[in-house]
Amino acid sequence: MIFVDACFGKKTPYTPVWMMRQAGRYLPEYMKVRDEAGDFLSLCKDPQKACEVTIQPVDILGVDAAILFSDILVVPLEMGMKLEFLKDEGPVFSKPILNYKDLDMLSVEESAKKLEYVYEAIRLIRAKLSKDKALIGFCGAPWTLATYMIEGKGTKTYAKVKKVLYSEPDFLHALLRKVTDALKLYMQNQIESGVNAIQIFDSWASALEESAFFEFSWSYMKELCDYLKARYPHIPIIMFPKGVSGFLDKIDGNFDVFGVDWSTPIELAKEKLGDKYVLQGNMEPTRLYSKEAIDIGVDKIVKVMKNRRHIFNLGHGILPDISVENAKYFVRLVQERTSI
Amino acid sequence: MIFVDACFGKKTPYTPVWMMRQAGRYLPEYMKVRDEAGDFLSLCKDPQKACEVTIQPVDILGVDAAILFSDILVVPLEMGMKLEFLKDEGPVFSKPILNYKDLDMLSVEESAKKLEYVYEAIRLIRAKLSKDKALIGFCGAPWTLATYMIEGKGTKTYAKVKKVLYSEPDFLHALLRKVTDALKLYMQNQIESGVNAIQIFDSWASALEESAFFEFSWSYMKELCDYLKARYPHIPIIMFPKGVSGFLDKIDGNFDVFGVDWSTPIELAKEKLGDKYVLQGNMEPTRLYSKEAIDIGVDKIVKVMKNRRHIFNLGHGILPDISVENAKYFVRLVQERTSI
Repeated sequence: MIFVDACFGKKTPYTPVWMMRQAGRYLPEYMKVRDEAGDFLSLCKDPQKACEVTIQPVDILGVDAAILFSDILVVPLEMGMKLEFLKDEGPVFSKPILNYKDLDMLSVEESAKKLEYVYEAIRLIRAKLSKDKALIGFCGAPWTLATYMIEGKGTKTYAKVKKVLYSEPDFLHALLRKVTDALKLYMQNQIESGVNAIQIFDSWASALEESAFFEFSWSYMKELCDYLKARYPHIPIIMFPKGVSGFLDKIDGNFDVFGVDWSTPIELAKEKLGDKYVLQGNMEPTRLYSKEAIDIGVDKIVKVMKNRRHIFNLGHGILPDISVENAKYFVRLVQERTSI
Repeated sequence: MIFVDACFGKKTPYTPVWMMRQAGRYLPEYMKVRDEAGDFLSLCKDPQKACEVTIQPVDILGVDAAILFSDILVVPLEMGMKLEFLKDEGPVFSKPILNYKDLDMLSVEESAKKLEYVYEAIRLIRAKLSKDKALIGFCGAPWTLATYMIEGKGTKTYAKVKKVLYSEPDFLHALLRKVTDALKLYMQNQIESGVNAIQIFDSWASALEESAFFEFSWSYMKELCDYLKARYPHIPIIMFPKGVSGFLDKIDGNFDVFGVDWSTPIELAKEKLGDKYVLQGNMEPTRLYSKEAIDIGVDKIVKVMKNRRHIFNLGHGILPDISVENAKYFVRLVQERTSI
């Protein structure tokens, strides 16, 4: 698989390309299946339909990898939290984790079993997906999940989780420990079910200053890598912490690919990490509004990453109002412009 | 004034300190005056009350500078846009700027005159404020204001303004030009009314990748600096673009102080900009939840900036649920720990 080869830094006939949230709302075919499923969470829990929407962007856009259709919050959900997706509000845990009693109610082994619908989706996808296309599994980073679990929903100020971080760091570490343990089993089961690579999303790394990032987030992400690499060295791991451009120097660990968000200049990522890791990213997602902007963005990244180990992607998820035509144009342009 | 001296890199008996949003909701005294005024916008438009809340944190916390109580959006408001502050939604322009016809309706000279209530507040504050305390005037950067004017309200994806940026860059430049012209007059009038320093807030610099930041934001901020410095070289200018840690190398211009947001490591800002500019910031605002976290945060910054030109501040506005006691503790600790 060209995608897996690229993750390991091997030479490939062109730079593989995929997009975060490529199975998403910009695709009419996705909207149809989601409407049939009823809502977002029901779609996550329906292996047949999850399989269908996972494969859609491969067929429609010709991307080089499929990413499992699911949500990072199914893990806290199956650990025992009540999760709802509310219109306008997004995901909400009505009973956030506030103390050790709440924490004790969360299961680790049980959650890994209850996530069977994800593993079943993976088996279905892997059976149906073309053999030369990779299937990427994923999870949220412990810090990002813990933030949701304490805040109960999206936040601008991170007030609740920061209060815990500064006044009850031991409690936060206990929560992170439990989430990390659940993720080890979850990712292990995803791999056993057939994914060819995994990506760990730390969307809320951007909420942490340097010292807090390394203590409360990166250490747990690294532990997860070590656990998986000891068992599955042939499965590439992609790390994607957002908003860490100020301290790329200090990033290290047992992983293969570093995902570069769009706000980090690709030259900077190349300088700081390009010798150690394959880089993924980092096209500014709103460039997909205009073909001219796509041309300029792709050209720039191709130039900087020429003869370097790279996987093309957006620096954040594709937006719902991008035209399918422009998404196709982007994928095709990358594959053409990088062909040897 | 110790604050103005520090802005110009002169030696001061201790490192001056103030906080963004120090005249704000965490202070019961502020809430009382705001309730009397009716709402946020009425408070901005009432020179007597704006004066009162501007001075409160100087009296209560002992900070070394007052910052004018106002809002960056009074400029588009007085250029002719209808502005409302809605509960839960924040500021909303019900008729965003979508085309050249909308743009033609905006006034430049007129707006500068209509902002008389701001100038009156400044005169009142300067008359009442202790002579050794500086009064900081401010405005939003052209890019941040233009973003609000096109989006109509806060945004996570910046979809509308990015569409304009990529498909109608000339129109965006025309809007930025007009806003910049209005800001020149507005800041000039603030200075003539008595402010001792000015800060330019580019909160949404973080929405732009490097090339777009320099084309659509920084160039206009620099132009504003050049205009003001040619006329008022004795008034220090503080630039505060958020989220630009990936390209600090390329920051330059005719200003005195660079505001470091909390996500940029202070060591990095010192390395890249510390020789050229006085640095301001960058304590993580949620550290104010805990005295222990304040101790560690202050110690760290004091250590890094020892014998360097620095003004203490938070790396973002103070949050509404911080205790006044902890805010006082922070201010006093900085003044004590940095005393010669």
